[in-house]
Parts: sequence; structure tokens; C-alpha cells
Amino acid sequence: MARPRLALVPGEPAGVGPELCVRAAQRTWNADLVAYGDGRSLLDASDRLGLPLQLVPPDTAHVAPGQLRLVEIANAASCRPGTPDPRNAAAVIAALSRAADDCLAGCCQGLVTGPVHKATINLGGIAYTGTTELLAAHAGCEVVMMLANDIVRVALATTHLPLRAVADAITADGLERTLRILGAAMRTGFGIDTPRIAVLGLNPHAGEAGHLGREEIEVIEPVLARLRGEGMRLDGPLPADTAFLPARLRGVDAVLAMYHDQGLPVLKYSGFEQAVNLTLGLPYPRVAVDHGTALDLAGTGRADPSSLFAAISTCTRLAAGRKERRP
Amino acid sequence: MARPRLALVPGEPAGVGPELCVRAAQRTWNADLVAYGDGRSLLDASDRLGLPLQLVPPDTAHVAPGQLRLVEIANAASCRPGTPDPRNAAAVIAALSRAADDCLAGCCQGLVTGPVHKATINLGGIAYTGTTELLAAHAGCEVVMMLANDIVRVALATTHLPLRAVADAITADGLERTLRILGAAMRTGFGIDTPRIAVLGLNPHAGEAGHLGREEIEVIEPVLARLRGEGMRLDGPLPADTAFLPARLRGVDAVLAMYHDQGLPVLKYSGFEQAVNLTLGLPYPRVAVDHGTALDLAGTGRADPSSLFAAISTCTRLAAGRKERRP
Repeated sequence: MARPRLALVPGEPAGVGPELCVRAAQRTWNADLVAYGDGRSLLDASDRLGLPLQLVPPDTAHVAPGQLRLVEIANAASCRPGTPDPRNAAAVIAALSRAADDCLAGCCQGLVTGPVHKATINLGGIAYTGTTELLAAHAGCEVVMMLANDIVRVALATTHLPLRAVADAITADGLERTLRILGAAMRTGFGIDTPRIAVLGLNPHAGEAGHLGREEIEVIEPVLARLRGEGMRLDGPLPADTAFLPARLRGVDAVLAMYHDQGLPVLKYSGFEQAVNLTLGLPYPRVAVDHGTALDLAGTGRADPSSLFAAISTCTRLAAGRKERRP
Repeated sequence: MARPRLALVPGEPAGVGPELCVRAAQRTWNADLVAYGDGRSLLDASDRLGLPLQLVPPDTAHVAPGQLRLVEIANAASCRPGTPDPRNAAAVIAALSRAADDCLAGCCQGLVTGPVHKATINLGGIAYTGTTELLAAHAGCEVVMMLANDIVRVALATTHLPLRAVADAITADGLERTLRILGAAMRTGFGIDTPRIAVLGLNPHAGEAGHLGREEIEVIEPVLARLRGEGMRLDGPLPADTAFLPARLRGVDAVLAMYHDQGLPVLKYSGFEQAVNLTLGLPYPRVAVDHGTALDLAGTGRADPSSLFAAISTCTRLAAGRKERRP
């Protein structure tokens, strides 16, 4: 298995991202990590944590624990933990874009991202709805958001929409594209040749034969039937309330929820610290932490690095899998 | 603590209800159970299970394990496990109504119900959307549905609605009534003087300050502010995906979810076998099993009675609590 090179973007410098990256730099990984961001905020975080950190050029071949490769993208303003500064919004976004460029160019084989503070980026004059959306636009492709822990993988047919917009956003074409992206990612990224995907209904009890809504009959079932005809293994549409019972999840490789709050409360409950957020459909694997900037914890040293560590491990496996499949 | 008398309705005779009631009759409880239903289907179930069952008149003072008080409401047709017969729909509904009558009259202090098969009742010519709704109409009051296990209690602001109808169904008046019913039930039923209730938002991330929907700002927050002014302890509106994390649930007496699939997947995942379904707002406590008729299991003897046992125990505690509070 080749050793992948992973771009690591700390995200909001006033959040917990820098200190989590410092903690990651104390460990050895089966991947070469390259940070993209502001060196000063990483060094400040290491000082606060009392942990060693030496920033080294991005092309350094071998690094020891306590060293971290850095592509410097300097902040415009100095940075106080817990207080995001909109003047640094451009640097945060530039670090993401530069890291994504290097992934698309093949210089890195995967992207791991820390949390970004949405409101601060927008206050900085940059229209930003989320890193997932930014990376999709940057690569010019459609993507699917999936959250995963050791218990279950949950992909979403729609992501950050007002609830009243969800039903109309579930279209046959969109659902078909989502299932194709999800199926392909399970094959190429996770090495599961014929993944079994449990598809939830949109309505309670999956519509109860049309009594509680007709989207299952008119939209979801026809898509599933068509894709089953192509050989995809698709269960459903299933009632969401019982789909996550351990006995039902047995043998299921991923669950496709129709919307955010249908799938994520149970995902997060079942193993929050280890959960990661994957973007499927990009030409490279991207894995993010499954938490926010945690401004109240920033600078205290108490932020739990489990999700970042899980993101690095997951991205390493996905990147290595992709490399293996290349001719 | 006085010993309450509980009405026990097996529900659909071709489902698992009768055999679960036979299993309940083998135990001693801190309540006097009185079954309302068809004696023949209970006796047939006991034969299949190889368990003793003697049906005794409803006014029998003391019963031993293996005996069960019965108010006979005979089926119209004989009954085969796994095959509901619409000719028995009238008997199923009559048993519920009779039991509810006796609860309203004070002859029983609580109602425990097994699963009913919605489609069969409707095929039998009786308009039926659910037992919760039937009991509310019968008592002429508004009710709130709550599911509970040992981990969490989840009440619902809306229940069995198509997803596209949910946003418009969340009104300030309705939400206020729901919270008053929930708060009162936590006080009178559960003996929690000032319950702390975590109220979820309608939209993902609770609307993210209006970016993902405005119902939190325009509907939910004003209701919470008004009721807080009356002394209610209300958290929220909270993002649903993180509200169920164990650290967040600490000290929370109940969660109010805005709709079915926002609250129930995590409730069921966190402890399905022990979950029960409560109807709050009736003049008497009503607790149901949190599962369906399980027609595939009916007659096999493999149906798990945990939820019915939990329902009986919960209803016993609630009924005893109410009796204590009477002058």
C-alpha cells in the first residue's frame, strides 16, 4: 500500500482547528500530512498546549513527531482563541482552495479539514454555505455528504435546507445521481464491490402505503426499481424510525437519509467523538471533522481530537485504496 | 401507594398482542390487570405458547399467575395468527372504547394497549388513524404523544403527517398547548415539579440564525419566551443532531421534537425493546407498546414481551402517582 500525502486544513484559526492539528502532529500516521494555513496560529496553539511543534517545508520527505509540513497561507490579522476575525476569512478560504488545487493536481491524495466558522466567512465578505459546497464548486462536480462512525454510515439526499423545502428537493433525477455517487464511492473508496444501501422514506413510516405522503410511491420507489435493474443492492424505502436498529443495520453498508435531521441525530448519538464527515463524488477523498469550531473550548486545550484523528485515519484508508486501484 | 387497576387491551387478535398478554398474565405486577378483548384468542395464544391461562371475571379480587381478569368483547370471526380479518375490526375498536370508558369512569386508573393493525381496521369500514387519536377524540381533549425508554423521553409536536405538511403544522398556539400538556404530564404523572424540557428546532441546526429557515425565530422562540416567563424551564430551540448526545441530555426530563422522524430514530436506536408510547393529556395515563402487530412473528412464540412489560410497569407508576395526588 503506497503512503498517501494528505492536505490538512486547520480551518478557522480562532477555533479549535489549530490545536487539534498540533495534536495530530505529535503522532505518526500512515500518511504524510501537509498543513495548509497560518503558521503563527499553529505555533501559538502548540505554545498554549505545551507541545512541541516545528514547521517544515512542504516537500520535506521525512518528519518526526512534533514536526509538521506547512504550506503557509498567512492570516491578515493576529488571532485570539474564541474570537474569529472576519479579516482572516480570505486566508481561511484560500487555504481550502489551495489544498483542493493540490488534490486535483495529484500533489496530495486526500483532504482533511477542520471546522470553519460560517458566519465569520460571510462577515468577511465571502459568500460561503459550507466547505462541502465550496469543494464541489471548485471541482465542478456533484457531491454527496456522508457522515460515518464505527456503527453506521449515513449519506444525505439533501443537506442544509429549511425543512419546508425538503420534499420538493427530493427529485427522481437528483436521487438517482445521489445513489450512483454513493454506490461508486462505496466501491472505489471503501472497496465494497456490491454495496448494500438502505434508503429511507421521506415521510413517517415511509409513507405507510401512501396514507402519510406519496413521495415514496411516486419518486423514491421508481428510482430504486430502476437502479436495482442495473444490479444495485438497495433496500427500501424504509421507515426511518426502525431502520437504525442494530438488527436492521446488519449487512447494510450505508444508509441514505432523505434529509439532515432524519439521519444525523442517531448517527451522532451512536458515536459522536469518532464520527467523520465525508464528501463523496470529488476526484479525491475528503474527510472533515464532525464538529464545529467550538469557540468556547478554543485555547483551553480541552478540545477532543478524536474526530480529527478519525478523519485522518479514514482519509488515509480511502486515499490508499484509490492509489491501489490505479494502473 | 394504592394498587391501581389497569385496563389491558391486546389489540389486533391476529398479531402478537394476545400472546404478549398471555406472557404478562404469568407474572405478578403492582397493579390489577383487566384484559378487554376476545377470550378465545387469548386462550388459543396460551395453547400455542404452552403457558397456563385461566380467564376470570373482571371483578375478581385476587388472581394468581396464569389467571387473567377479562371483560369479554368477542370477535366476529375466528382468528388465524398472521392474517388479520377485517370482520374483527369492530371488536378491536369496541375493546379500546370500552376500556377507555372504564378509565374515564374511574373503574380503571390506567390503560395499556397492544398493537392495532391500521389497514385492517379501515378495511373493516372503521375510519381509524391511530389509537392515540381515537382516545383523544373519545375523551374530547388534546393529547401529546411521547415515546420513552430508560435513556430519554421524546414528545412530538406533530405525529403522523406527511413531511411536506410539517412546517405549516407547527403553529404558536399548537406548540404552546403541546408544551403545557407536556409540562403538566411531567408534573402530575412523573412527579417532576419543574421539568426541564429540551425543545428542538424545526430546521437543520435549528435554522442557524435564520439562514436555514425562520420558524425558530418567528414561531418557536416567541412561544418559549412566553412560557419561560411563566416559570417553565425550556431549553432551545436546539439543533436536533446534537441534542441527544449523552452530555446534552443530562438533566433534561423530556425532549420535544417537532416531527416524527426527527425524534424517533434516535429514541428507538437508544433502547428499542424497552421503549413505550405514552399518551399525555388524557384524564388517565395511557401507555402502549412501541411496536406494531408483527404479523410475521404472530403464532411463533418468538415475540419479545419487553415493550408490553415496560408499558405495564410505566402505567402502574403513572397511575399510582396520580392516585397519590388525589385529595
